[in-house]
Amino acid sequence: MSLIEKRRKTRQISVGNVKVGSDSPISVQSMTNTQTQDVQATVKQILALEKAGCEIIRVAVPDMEAALAIEKIKQKISIPVIADIHFDYRLAIASAKAGVDALRINPGNIGEQKKIKAVVDCAKEHKISIRIGVNAGSLEKNIEKRFGITAKAMKESALINIKILEDLDFHDIKVSLKASDVSRTVQAYRLLAPKTDVPFHIGVTEAGGLYAGIAKSAIGIGMLLAEGLGDTMRVSLTRDPVEEIRTGFEILRALGIRSRGPELISCPTCGRCKIDLFKIAHDTEKALLERSSKIKVAIMGCAVNGPGEAKEADIGIAGGDGKGILFKKGKVIRKIDQDKLVEQLLMEIDNIENEKSGDI
Amino acid sequence: MSLIEKRRKTRQISVGNVKVGSDSPISVQSMTNTQTQDVQATVKQILALEKAGCEIIRVAVPDMEAALAIEKIKQKISIPVIADIHFDYRLAIASAKAGVDALRINPGNIGEQKKIKAVVDCAKEHKISIRIGVNAGSLEKNIEKRFGITAKAMKESALINIKILEDLDFHDIKVSLKASDVSRTVQAYRLLAPKTDVPFHIGVTEAGGLYAGIAKSAIGIGMLLAEGLGDTMRVSLTRDPVEEIRTGFEILRALGIRSRGPELISCPTCGRCKIDLFKIAHDTEKALLERSSKIKVAIMGCAVNGPGEAKEADIGIAGGDGKGILFKKGKVIRKIDQDKLVEQLLMEIDNIENEKSGDI
Repeated sequence: MSLIEKRRKTRQISVGNVKVGSDSPISVQSMTNTQTQDVQATVKQILALEKAGCEIIRVAVPDMEAALAIEKIKQKISIPVIADIHFDYRLAIASAKAGVDALRINPGNIGEQKKIKAVVDCAKEHKISIRIGVNAGSLEKNIEKRFGITAKAMKESALINIKILEDLDFHDIKVSLKASDVSRTVQAYRLLAPKTDVPFHIGVTEAGGLYAGIAKSAIGIGMLLAEGLGDTMRVSLTRDPVEEIRTGFEILRALGIRSRGPELISCPTCGRCKIDLFKIAHDTEKALLERSSKIKVAIMGCAVNGPGEAKEADIGIAGGDGKGILFKKGKVIRKIDQDKLVEQLLMEIDNIENEKSGDI
Repeated sequence: MSLIEKRRKTRQISVGNVKVGSDSPISVQSMTNTQTQDVQATVKQILALEKAGCEIIRVAVPDMEAALAIEKIKQKISIPVIADIHFDYRLAIASAKAGVDALRINPGNIGEQKKIKAVVDCAKEHKISIRIGVNAGSLEKNIEKRFGITAKAMKESALINIKILEDLDFHDIKVSLKASDVSRTVQAYRLLAPKTDVPFHIGVTEAGGLYAGIAKSAIGIGMLLAEGLGDTMRVSLTRDPVEEIRTGFEILRALGIRSRGPELISCPTCGRCKIDLFKIAHDTEKALLERSSKIKVAIMGCAVNGPGEAKEADIGIAGGDGKGILFKKGKVIRKIDQDKLVEQLLMEIDNIENEKSGDI
């Protein structure tokens, strides 16, 4: 039984070799927070993000030096790059010439028609797509005046920006409608959905740190995906961007849309637990991050209830008193000393992985 | 504009002095992971949880010593206590006599009718309520055989357990239907909702650590609350239970249902940011945890876009180059040296709090 309503019908566009929209997988993206012109630092961060599963990376292009750095960055990484540009159309053109795979601009912010046309002509020539990135905090003044800072205003801004590009016969567009609160974000996508077949980049902006950031992103992105709205996503956290990717895949997994690597279920422990389960869960989680098989692993506090409660897991451990037990599909296999639990669990996972074939 | 559908109509029950169901606030609960018989450790954890906003606390009662400890624990704490009992009806009776405010049992696991009746008579005498805690991992064998480990099986188990209690003319019931995956959890509550007016305790069980645990809980609990299903909640994390409370309130805040303390929005930073924003955001977040006013605070990376994007915040700071700026409702107030940003921001928040009246 899936929670997911039928996915919204959209056109399909390309960001480099990643397809976005229609029936393509919902991709997970992030944004670097290095100075883009610092090629070494930016490449290092992107490679870490690639390893975590990042499929599209955006970089800020605040000046010409950053635009020119894109060419060197692209040589050392594998995933497509989006240039994030505010206001200055020349930076968009320079980024395109530097080999960027897509632009994030708001045509309405670029200014005169001839500048917009220059960017669009350049995007056509280089066969790159454009994300219209509507943000509740930076709406066009006339729209904000008319509609306030509302979901409706965000929808109107998106429609105007889409029209600007489509009137120039440019259709390789995706659109985002981000606010820092879940409610307006979700409502804006709901309002825009019936008005266009442009694919949606979804996310809650400035969501915050770990607790608020993950909670707001998971609710906002989760509700949208459950309604079939969303073709690519970015989780926004005031944290290392690698954590954005990790959270993104956890959201997709929680909804049964995509999975990446092993799934760990673990109990919160209670007064029945006589083992340091937090450390065991933490060590196991860390070790499993490197793996790509689709195995389901359970870390349970209590040897009495644990194996039964986690009988759907391929493998698991449950705490006893100083000792733990190893179980498979709810059946107890053997007792293990507490300090060897993680090691032996990982060894057994190796064995299962050798039997199964892993895929991502 | 709210995302929330009309709340499901339920009967109202009491857990000590906390009302659950009908139009009472959606309460946030947690469970201790200390040995319950260790009164000192358990009280210490409950007091930390109270400070974080916990409104109901559950303790494991695996043996008679734990049941008897409840009396001493209750003397030193302020929030109601639920005794979590598996199988042994004598522990339920002892807990009730020790002054517990509610029981979590599954009547179907208690065994013979006369034992169930003894528990119910005791609950009536002490005027305490009962949570029926259905868990996908510990369904009655005959139900699991008939329906598999499914949302439907969970609903059936709940209905059978509700009937056992109601046939004994006991109605102070709430029910939970937890699975370790979001999909079955949400579906089970959806299936049960039209069949009873018993209030719902909601949550995803064994959700895991920080990323998976918050994401799964936020999506599952968030979707249910958005559909009007849910009267009290517990976020389950393999972490300090204080983090469960924090996550619970972030979920309620994200949905606009309840808020607790200041709201922090913060940007993820990008190549435009020339300041150590992660540290600033972290330090600010930590300081704000202690406060109870409903102020909205923004921590933005970029002095050019930040104040405008965060113009809905009561107050905020944005990073420049070595310096930062302080702004109120989008208007720049003054420049501040980077190393004084947090200190001066907190001082300004003091001033605003003195003007406003805080409430929780």
